[in-house]
Amino acid sequence: MYFYKNEFIHKKDIQISPDDRGYYFGDGIYEVFRVYNGQIYEGEAHMQRLERTASEVRLQLPYNNEEIIDIINKLIHHNNLIEGTVYLQITRGEAPRAHPFPAQAEPILLAYCSEVKRPLSTIQNGIKAITQPDIRWLRCDLKTLNLLPNVLAKQAALDHGVQEVILHREGTVTECSASNLMMVKDHLLYTHPANHLILHGITRAVVLRLAHALQVQVKEEPFTTEQLLQADEVFITGTTVEITSILLIDGQVIGTGTPGPITQRLQAEFERTFLQ
Amino acid sequence: MYFYKNEFIHKKDIQISPDDRGYYFGDGIYEVFRVYNGQIYEGEAHMQRLERTASEVRLQLPYNNEEIIDIINKLIHHNNLIEGTVYLQITRGEAPRAHPFPAQAEPILLAYCSEVKRPLSTIQNGIKAITQPDIRWLRCDLKTLNLLPNVLAKQAALDHGVQEVILHREGTVTECSASNLMMVKDHLLYTHPANHLILHGITRAVVLRLAHALQVQVKEEPFTTEQLLQADEVFITGTTVEITSILLIDGQVIGTGTPGPITQRLQAEFERTFLQ
Repeated sequence: MYFYKNEFIHKKDIQISPDDRGYYFGDGIYEVFRVYNGQIYEGEAHMQRLERTASEVRLQLPYNNEEIIDIINKLIHHNNLIEGTVYLQITRGEAPRAHPFPAQAEPILLAYCSEVKRPLSTIQNGIKAITQPDIRWLRCDLKTLNLLPNVLAKQAALDHGVQEVILHREGTVTECSASNLMMVKDHLLYTHPANHLILHGITRAVVLRLAHALQVQVKEEPFTTEQLLQADEVFITGTTVEITSILLIDGQVIGTGTPGPITQRLQAEFERTFLQ
Repeated sequence: MYFYKNEFIHKKDIQISPDDRGYYFGDGIYEVFRVYNGQIYEGEAHMQRLERTASEVRLQLPYNNEEIIDIINKLIHHNNLIEGTVYLQITRGEAPRAHPFPAQAEPILLAYCSEVKRPLSTIQNGIKAITQPDIRWLRCDLKTLNLLPNVLAKQAALDHGVQEVILHREGTVTECSASNLMMVKDHLLYTHPANHLILHGITRAVVLRLAHALQVQVKEEPFTTEQLLQADEVFITGTTVEITSILLIDGQVIGTGTPGPITQRLQAEFERTFLQ
């Protein structure tokens, strides 16, 4: 059961128009909500980010916060979702193809849920990554449907036999193709500041809160790929990956080559907070 | 009459799946072909660019060149199109939402034509523009469906009561939201080199050829917004705008405030070459 254009509807009955601006321009925004035990994880933070992105791209949300949360909860209920994700996107509506905002179009919300298990194996055992130049636009803080560079980066990772790409702008690490990145060096936790160059990840913010609670000192400041390779621990954060170690970057072992102690403490605290 | 998924079909019967990667990721490419007197303008150049973009984003074209040209000609014929455009896009196909290239999906071609008259009034009388930072990704040479920055720029122009936005990277002029830009200074024609920072416009290339034929010396080199404001003539080039003067930039008059002599010679030569 999907939600599309004001109704709950079977996927096969959805008829997206070629004039949907999502299709011609990627003119839309989205969020992926995590569901644990049938409950939305950090729903308010996701809604705040959705509202901020909508405002920045000047897209009028077709429903208020409560109505959107209600749609999500009905999807969870209708589909008996216990553990999974709810994908929700809003495009600027249907109009004959022309760049300017259409005068009459009404924004279109599409949402559906999927069963997605926690990736326990990679959470425990870590992943590998490569580095690549970050060629994305200069508003990576906006969660829009213009995701082709992320698609190409992610595919490059798989082609290299690894799971993620670490992006950098002229040597300064930003984030990954679909997750934020953090590193630990000399007991300090480093991550790129939440400016226009990275997505302001919900789990990124959660991890910074958990680090504070665990008295791990946080430095939100840029660092280089060279510094990254010298880190004691490196991990990514994201709604579905949660907190996952990166143990090998461009073929080089990070730290001891196993998930580090601060990473593990954060993972344990994450589980304690959200999964018990 | 549209073309969609291997058949000619009425627009109302097109049922785009939410799983079309064009819809989730803008994972697709496009071209807009111009039609004069029922004939495709610079068809081969458009096809070469389409092939190049497809190759760069690693998307397999579902038909060969001849087949695509045949589809376009059938659309022109079925719709009795004399003067207009053919819009053609190809997405990476349908698959459950995940960043990596799907293993099984088949690329989907959508195409349709529209009656579009030549914008004779603006070609003769020119337009106004504003300047804005170019925040797009670093592969502006690829004609993909990730067009949100272009949409936002074009809308900013309209909000300022002008028709185009001239984009610049830290003061270096690149191009416009949906057209290339050229300027004339001391009888020389300047335009940004065709690298990764601008679209390699078909009409841009045509105009450089025409300039050569008219013995106007061309300099494909970057210039600044300050130099732009001191130009004798400024104009944009594009498949639908053809060659259109910009007479006012950020409220400042360019040259004499009327279409300049080299612009007019290029316009006349364009008409003579393609419209007679």
